[in-house]
Amino acid sequence: MGMKCIGVDIGGTSVKIGLFETTGELLDKWEVKTRKEDGGVNILPDVAASIRKKLDEKGLDLKKDVAGAGMGVPGPVMPDGYVEVCVNLGWRDLNPQEELSRLLDGIPVKSGNDANVAALGEMWQGGGKGYSDLVMVTLGTGVGGGIIVDGKIVAGAHGAGGEVGHACVDPEEEAVCNCGNHGCLEQMTSATGIVRLAKKYLASHDTPSSLRERGESISAKAVFDALKEGDAAAEAIVQEFSEYLGRALAVFACVVDPEVIVVGGGVSKAGQILIDGVAKYYREAAFIACKDTPIVLASLGNDAGIYGAAKMLID
Amino acid sequence: MGMKCIGVDIGGTSVKIGLFETTGELLDKWEVKTRKEDGGVNILPDVAASIRKKLDEKGLDLKKDVAGAGMGVPGPVMPDGYVEVCVNLGWRDLNPQEELSRLLDGIPVKSGNDANVAALGEMWQGGGKGYSDLVMVTLGTGVGGGIIVDGKIVAGAHGAGGEVGHACVDPEEEAVCNCGNHGCLEQMTSATGIVRLAKKYLASHDTPSSLRERGESISAKAVFDALKEGDAAAEAIVQEFSEYLGRALAVFACVVDPEVIVVGGGVSKAGQILIDGVAKYYREAAFIACKDTPIVLASLGNDAGIYGAAKMLID
Repeated sequence: MGMKCIGVDIGGTSVKIGLFETTGELLDKWEVKTRKEDGGVNILPDVAASIRKKLDEKGLDLKKDVAGAGMGVPGPVMPDGYVEVCVNLGWRDLNPQEELSRLLDGIPVKSGNDANVAALGEMWQGGGKGYSDLVMVTLGTGVGGGIIVDGKIVAGAHGAGGEVGHACVDPEEEAVCNCGNHGCLEQMTSATGIVRLAKKYLASHDTPSSLRERGESISAKAVFDALKEGDAAAEAIVQEFSEYLGRALAVFACVVDPEVIVVGGGVSKAGQILIDGVAKYYREAAFIACKDTPIVLASLGNDAGIYGAAKMLID
Repeated sequence: MGMKCIGVDIGGTSVKIGLFETTGELLDKWEVKTRKEDGGVNILPDVAASIRKKLDEKGLDLKKDVAGAGMGVPGPVMPDGYVEVCVNLGWRDLNPQEELSRLLDGIPVKSGNDANVAALGEMWQGGGKGYSDLVMVTLGTGVGGGIIVDGKIVAGAHGAGGEVGHACVDPEEEAVCNCGNHGCLEQMTSATGIVRLAKKYLASHDTPSSLRERGESISAKAVFDALKEGDAAAEAIVQEFSEYLGRALAVFACVVDPEVIVVGGGVSKAGQILIDGVAKYYREAAFIACKDTPIVLASLGNDAGIYGAAKMLID
């Protein structure tokens, strides 16, 4: 029986935990509720207790059978694991990786920003499997991302490595992003960003569209569904989305020149049609050496975080 | 007497070579002519002979006293040192680092793209000294750059890591860049790019300006000199340059979140006034965690390449 490792993905609602073979096989996964009250003081003890219970059930010994645990945190994490503040969990001035290690009899624990950790997961067992240099962009409610160089997360000097959602892609944009800036990629290509593009388009064009019937209930999924049905307005909206994302990916490629670009998050459920649109504008704008870099869909869905967290312990 | 290392910076006209203490002190530097004829077949033998001669003069032994040699190459270099083609030198299908090692009795030789290697030099002993995560942009005839993460060059999957000059900063630009794309950072912020911005500005505005007297002989240096004299047209031209560069640096910072941004190349001789202009637009566009990232001038000038090359041998 080989060594195991544990991946912990801490979210605002629940903590996902996975038990893995160090070879990459997921043996079991489960969730515990995230208790954010009292400054999130219960979160790590809950995680530790849940891990101990699971290992007991499986007849595994923490010190003998487990190589360590990795952890994704929904906020900036400094290279030494320090978290100054994590608004999503109520944490302040904490080193959660040291704390979790202490709660687990001193086994090695590493941690990183959740979007960065998910990128590592996709590299290990997902859409980027077989590669070690990767740019991942996650299109969800917001836009996150992760940069992997030589198999390692680029965490960044301020824990902001891979914060590609806040790359400015339109300096003329007047609407304000959640981050306080204007014209961020997130404002154009997140699920909410696509809805914004759609509403703007429909308000300023007469193009007949099934999307008009939806009024306020329009969604990114509805836009891509309409595109698949040949809706002309949806085509124009997705083209605008694709221009923003494809061109931004081309800029990111000039910086780190990855082997592969992975697109994940809820919006990416639209599938290959999304990739095809983005790839067209990517190839137009990309530097000649990077024009053929593959752009692929993420494949681990919500499990990317536990995979990546577990991978942090394995060289 | 400590161990030495050798830095080789191969240019299209001359090869710069430096002899260093592994602690970073430059002991001697010299140049040999780059003989590009016959597919550049003489370049590496000339370099090796010149190094042997210098070591003899100093009473140093290649195998006993030299930890190794590093080399910057003016073109894309694959992670294993392979060079498919280097138009500036006439090389094709060559592994120059293996070749130079063979010519130097098997001492360790490492190599990289010259702009990337210069960034490593600035990190070691230049404007980025004391840091290990750095973005460097080099504003010369073209715009090059280098990305350093955790003290190591990000060479990229196709040798195009740090090719930040070919990030598209204006998709609407119709003029064609040397790379074949449109709207590259190089077209706006290289020495020739600034001249282009200046001519466009002067042709479309009535602003009185000392630059008009220069006609076709306008240069990037003349624009910054005029700025220092309070010339209103120069102010507007440098503002446009600063917007392009500051915003682009903010995007690069979202990708790798460096500790410091270093600006080098001939254009950077304009000095702190250039940095101040760029920093203003950088801080406006940068993600909140990266707004205070220092932007500094490179300090090694044409020696950055030999410093960085030597540093490749030292962990």
